[in-house]
Amino acid sequence: MTIAATDDGPLGIICGGGAIPLAVAAAVQRRGRRVMLFALRGFVDAQAVAAFPHCWIAIGQFGRFRRLARAEGCRDLVLVGGLVRPAIRQVRLDWATLVEMPRILRAFRGGDDHLLTGIGRILESDGFRLLGAHEVAPDITAPPGALGIHQPDADAAGDIARGFEMLDALSPFDVGQAAVIAKGRVLAVEAAEGTDAMLQRVVALREAGRIGLPRGTGVLVKAPKQRQDRRFDLPSIGPDTVLHAARAGLAGIAVVAGGTIIAEPQCLVEAADKNGLFVLGRADREAG
Amino acid sequence: MTIAATDDGPLGIICGGGAIPLAVAAAVQRRGRRVMLFALRGFVDAQAVAAFPHCWIAIGQFGRFRRLARAEGCRDLVLVGGLVRPAIRQVRLDWATLVEMPRILRAFRGGDDHLLTGIGRILESDGFRLLGAHEVAPDITAPPGALGIHQPDADAAGDIARGFEMLDALSPFDVGQAAVIAKGRVLAVEAAEGTDAMLQRVVALREAGRIGLPRGTGVLVKAPKQRQDRRFDLPSIGPDTVLHAARAGLAGIAVVAGGTIIAEPQCLVEAADKNGLFVLGRADREAG
Repeated sequence: MTIAATDDGPLGIICGGGAIPLAVAAAVQRRGRRVMLFALRGFVDAQAVAAFPHCWIAIGQFGRFRRLARAEGCRDLVLVGGLVRPAIRQVRLDWATLVEMPRILRAFRGGDDHLLTGIGRILESDGFRLLGAHEVAPDITAPPGALGIHQPDADAAGDIARGFEMLDALSPFDVGQAAVIAKGRVLAVEAAEGTDAMLQRVVALREAGRIGLPRGTGVLVKAPKQRQDRRFDLPSIGPDTVLHAARAGLAGIAVVAGGTIIAEPQCLVEAADKNGLFVLGRADREAG
Repeated sequence: MTIAATDDGPLGIICGGGAIPLAVAAAVQRRGRRVMLFALRGFVDAQAVAAFPHCWIAIGQFGRFRRLARAEGCRDLVLVGGLVRPAIRQVRLDWATLVEMPRILRAFRGGDDHLLTGIGRILESDGFRLLGAHEVAPDITAPPGALGIHQPDADAAGDIARGFEMLDALSPFDVGQAAVIAKGRVLAVEAAEGTDAMLQRVVALREAGRIGLPRGTGVLVKAPKQRQDRRFDLPSIGPDTVLHAARAGLAGIAVVAGGTIIAEPQCLVEAADKNGLFVLGRADREAG
C-alpha cells in the first residue's frame, strides 16, 4: 500500500546510518510532505543531516524521543538506515527506556528482526503509526526489470532462481537476506556480517584461486526475509554494492522489485553500466 | 554399514590435505588391514605420509593413478582429506584424464559434492569400490554424547536444535555444512569459505562489538549435507576447530555422531576441556 502525502504533521524519520535515510527524506519532501529527522547519535553523519529539519537522539532515549516527536507533531514514523548492533557506549538510558527494559531486552536476544519489530511494537503501543520507507517513498525502491543497460544471461537467470529459492528456505531462521551463487554453486551466505563483508569474502576466495570460474560469473541475490515486516530493515543496495560485486567478479545483482531500496540510483546505474554488471528488480507478488 | 577388515588387497587411500587421511590410515592398520596411500601432490605433507606405504599422484593423473592402484592390488578405495579447489598449476593432465575430461568438467561446475561424487562415479565405473572413511575406520568418527568434561546448557541445547534444523533446510542447495548460532540468532553460515574462515568471521564480529552476547555463548553446529554421499567429504573437526571456536567466544561444538571425523581426538578433548567448551556428538538416525 502506498501512503499518500497527508497534512497531519511532518513525517518523523528515525535515522540509522548510511545514505538511505536522507534519500527517503528527500523523496518524501518531493512528494510534498514535511519531514522531521530523528538522527541516532553515532550512526548518522552530522553534515548530511544538516540539510533537513532534525534533532539528535541516542539509542536508549525512548522518553526523550517521545517528547520531541510529540512536540514536533509527528504521529507517523519511519525507521530507516543501518543499525549495526549498537556498541554499549553509544547507549544512553532514560527513565522511559528503563521502564520498557524487559521488553527491549527480549527483543535484543532474537535476531535483528526481533529487535526492530520489538521497538516498532513499543512505538505503536505509544500511539505512533509506523510506516515503511517503501510506503512513504515508493520511488526509492527497485522497479521491475533491468536498471541499467546489461541483462542477465541464461546462467545468471538460473543462479537468480536458485538464489531466491535458497533465501526462501533460510527465511524461517531469521537469516539470509543475501547470498552469492555462481553456476549453481553457493559461494557465500550472509548472516550477521552484512552484504559488503560477504562480498569481500568472495573477493578473497577468488584471489586465493578457490572459485575456479571466469570473472563475470555469478549473482548477488538479495531479498527481504519472508516473514519480515517490511516496515523495518528493508534490504538496500547502492553504488558500493555494485563496486563490491564487480570486485568479486560477479555478473550482476538481483533484488526484489518494490522490496529493496536503491540508494543513489543514478550513481548505482552508472557504476553497473561501466563495470558490465546487470542490476535486476525481480517482480514479486508481495510487492506494491 | 561397517566394512570388516578383509584380505583382498590393501586399502587404497587417496589423500587430500590435513591430518585426517593419516588418522584414517593408522586406524585401518590398527584394524589389521594393509594400506597404500596415494598422496595428492600439493595437498599432502611429505614427512607425515612417509610413515605409511605411499606413492605420489597429481590431480589430473587418472591414468597414472589407475596403473599404480592396480599394480598395488588396491580394489577398495577411500577418498579423504581437504581438497580445496585445486589451483590450476597443481593440475597434471594425462591421457586418461583427457578422455574423461568432459565428465570431469561437468563435475567441477557443480558444488563440491558434485566434484567428488563425479570423481567417485568415474572410479567406480573403472571397477574400483569406493568406501567411506567412516566405514573403514568407524573409531575415528564422533561417538554419541559429550566428548570431554563439559556439557551444553539449556541455551546451547536450543542453539544446537535450531542449528541442525537450519542446516537441514539448506541441504538441498548443496551448501551449509556448518553454522554458528547464539541464543537463537544465526551469526554465520558456511558456504565456500570453510569452517575455520567462518569462525574467524565470528571472532571479528565479536571484536567489533557486533555480537552483544557474553563469551561462552553460542554453538558451532556441523553436519553432513542430507543428500551427501557420506563416502565423500565427511565433515571433520580437530583441535584447531576447538581453538577457533574458543576464540569466537562459543560455548561448544555439536556434530553428528558417526557422521563426523574427529582428527586427533586426544588433543581435541584436551583443548575443549581446558577452554571450557563442550563437544557433543548428536545421535543421528542415519549414522551407524
